[in-house]
Amino acid sequence: MDFASKIRDVVDFPKPGIVFKDITPLLQDPRAFQTAVDVIADRHVGSKLDAIVAVESRGFIIGSALAYKLGCSLVVVRKAGKLPAKTISTRYALEYGEDELHIHEDALQPGQKVLIADDLLATGGTVRATGQLIRQLGATPVEAVFLVELNGLGGRELVNDIPCFSLMSFDVEE
Amino acid sequence: MDFASKIRDVVDFPKPGIVFKDITPLLQDPRAFQTAVDVIADRHVGSKLDAIVAVESRGFIIGSALAYKLGCSLVVVRKAGKLPAKTISTRYALEYGEDELHIHEDALQPGQKVLIADDLLATGGTVRATGQLIRQLGATPVEAVFLVELNGLGGRELVNDIPCFSLMSFDVEE
Repeated sequence: MDFASKIRDVVDFPKPGIVFKDITPLLQDPRAFQTAVDVIADRHVGSKLDAIVAVESRGFIIGSALAYKLGCSLVVVRKAGKLPAKTISTRYALEYGEDELHIHEDALQPGQKVLIADDLLATGGTVRATGQLIRQLGATPVEAVFLVELNGLGGRELVNDIPCFSLMSFDVEE
Repeated sequence: MDFASKIRDVVDFPKPGIVFKDITPLLQDPRAFQTAVDVIADRHVGSKLDAIVAVESRGFIIGSALAYKLGCSLVVVRKAGKLPAKTISTRYALEYGEDELHIHEDALQPGQKVLIADDLLATGGTVRATGQLIRQLGATPVEAVFLVELNGLGGRELVNDIPCFSLMSFDVEE
């Protein structure tokens, strides 16, 4: 399936000079969305994955369907102040600033094998931070999966100890 | 399935005096999460639903799995500044303040039948606002579905022209 044709370029979002890759046309196409989830899930059928760790908030979209399909635990990683129970957290650099990610301290058990799910791999800061939180809880991130990867921003290099899989990739001009 | 046993009470979140219903234990239990999605989806199998409208951001979790399972379009309703393309918006009262919801103006087509998905029905403000956005685009919200409903906050009354279904409900003391 030509997933890239389902991604819309939005110029000057979130700020002038940025061309945003909008995944909503893909989500709105039922066959494209189901196929996207299936292609990613099929990589892990039979691999005894324990959990999908979905990163706020577009990561919830791909992570939830993956957890449903694979029969895994769904764990959410969120910004500060969003998770109600006791969390551990880490600060990280964003593509456009800095932020903090939290995970419930009882969300994962030592030894669990988990998949990180997010919509987009850009600079890789969010994924690296998520991987750190997962390891702090004693679990292992076996792969990070994305709908879209932006080439040339160093994402894969930054998260170099977690294999990354993306459904499609685009070159960006800096 | 005893879904209520998978909901954790968190006292004094997000502020003193509030007992927050935390759905993360349900999400972390693979069988509970799959069953929750199936119970809701089964109400709409064969009903020719066109789209699931999922409300930011916990609504993405239930909405995404429903869209995947039912083979519907997945449309996201988000806070201000989050959707990249042209939107329509509405302001609404929250349980703890006021906010604004947006939907892409090309997200739904006139005549489409849609299901609203969110994690929680409390005062109903978010759902009512989402229903207004859906109707502004000429589509029809046939039902709003939730994992958890808080009784006694007037949610069903406020959204009275959209049928509501919740997987479980709890009484709250005001």
